[in-house]
Amino acid sequence: MSSSGAAAGRGDRTEQPPMRDALIAAAFRLFPERGYEQTTVDDIVALAGVGRRSFFRYFPTKEDVVFPDHERCLADMTAFLAASPDDAEPVARVCDAARLVLRMYAENPSFSVQRYRLTKQVPGLRAYELSVVWHYERAMARFLRERFAGHPDGILRADVIAAAVVAAHNNALRAWLRSDGREDAEAALDHALGQVLEAFGAAAPARPPSPPPGASGASPEDVVVVVSRRDAPLWRVVRELESVLGHG
Amino acid sequence: MSSSGAAAGRGDRTEQPPMRDALIAAAFRLFPERGYEQTTVDDIVALAGVGRRSFFRYFPTKEDVVFPDHERCLADMTAFLAASPDDAEPVARVCDAARLVLRMYAENPSFSVQRYRLTKQVPGLRAYELSVVWHYERAMARFLRERFAGHPDGILRADVIAAAVVAAHNNALRAWLRSDGREDAEAALDHALGQVLEAFGAAAPARPPSPPPGASGASPEDVVVVVSRRDAPLWRVVRELESVLGHG
Repeated sequence: MSSSGAAAGRGDRTEQPPMRDALIAAAFRLFPERGYEQTTVDDIVALAGVGRRSFFRYFPTKEDVVFPDHERCLADMTAFLAASPDDAEPVARVCDAARLVLRMYAENPSFSVQRYRLTKQVPGLRAYELSVVWHYERAMARFLRERFAGHPDGILRADVIAAAVVAAHNNALRAWLRSDGREDAEAALDHALGQVLEAFGAAAPARPPSPPPGASGASPEDVVVVVSRRDAPLWRVVRELESVLGHG
Repeated sequence: MSSSGAAAGRGDRTEQPPMRDALIAAAFRLFPERGYEQTTVDDIVALAGVGRRSFFRYFPTKEDVVFPDHERCLADMTAFLAASPDDAEPVARVCDAARLVLRMYAENPSFSVQRYRLTKQVPGLRAYELSVVWHYERAMARFLRERFAGHPDGILRADVIAAAVVAAHNNALRAWLRSDGREDAEAALDHALGQVLEAFGAAAPARPPSPPPGASGASPEDVVVVVSRRDAPLWRVVRELESVLGHG
């Protein structure tokens, strides 16, 4: 894997200023050679052939050059959520937002794998990454909180689902990074998000709004979850079950 | 609320060396007065009446004095999980671990509220807190990964559930902190964890291992969750329900 190639790959796609990309390419050529801590901003600007002030125009700190696409990706994801149709199912929409984030990684496998290795080695970068992840999670939670406004436990539910979606995303992302970017990242994420949808799709009304019970759209493999208080009369629970299972 | 009182309250309970507690008390008297960034380690040791080296014996950095109980609490929680009986339901056990963490906050309301205000104001402390939370989450995920070893998707499931439990904990904790420590933190957490158990308890056996159905230990308020495939015959679902509800 060529670090300059990885950074150039980024540049082609993201249409960022060439100077910014030159700085990223220089940084990712130096980090593996000298180590992250030992590489100074002066080293990076010298290799990129630009002035020191140019570096800080694009990157407030040396850590920021390691995550050059995150601010844009967070903005894209937030805009995607803000543009959600009113009738979009909120949990499914947040899952789609997670797919958007994964795509940023998956489109640049060698760059993403290189950063993963770097982040594992440098505690300061891990801390930076936690804060990046936290921003994604909060943006998802904000969207869900709005959609769940007025529901009992809307805020709690929003927070828990956002955390679960992010955990599923990170699980799929890490598996893909450990495969050196060879496996199918999007398939892994679809599978992981399936677990979240299975868990939290259940607290939506047990009876799907459509198709009606017994209609051909319902598959025998569907899972039906009935939640009941222990003191509920059995006949009420059975009546509810009958209608959901389509035996009624 | 008195900051020195808060720190002294901590000291009474935690049985830490008096010098360590004096440093915490001094720090939490100075932070609100001068601001966190403006308070130096020299200021803290001068007020506590101890030498500079004593500070660094207990706290590697100034940030560590803000979270003086976390290392012990993380160790306690990890030990609690490691000591889990073999037949303990893993998700319920992780919920109990979260209750253990909340108790550390709830036992020192004024100290916890003071830190909450400080952490909201200082980005560096927020980053520190994210890393603290990450350590709790990873410890829970490690425990669940072990318990789910061999299950399909065990790792994924462990990661998602740990994230959901932590999100529920943080939701309850924040609500309590915003009430200035006046509301019932443990009741809020029980309620929040109920949502997680509802979502993920579904894959655990529907019937609790004890007490037996209909025994006096079961309360009418208990929630019963039955999971069924849509193609299950109704009689089987009803029979299961009867035994769980104790009507059978």
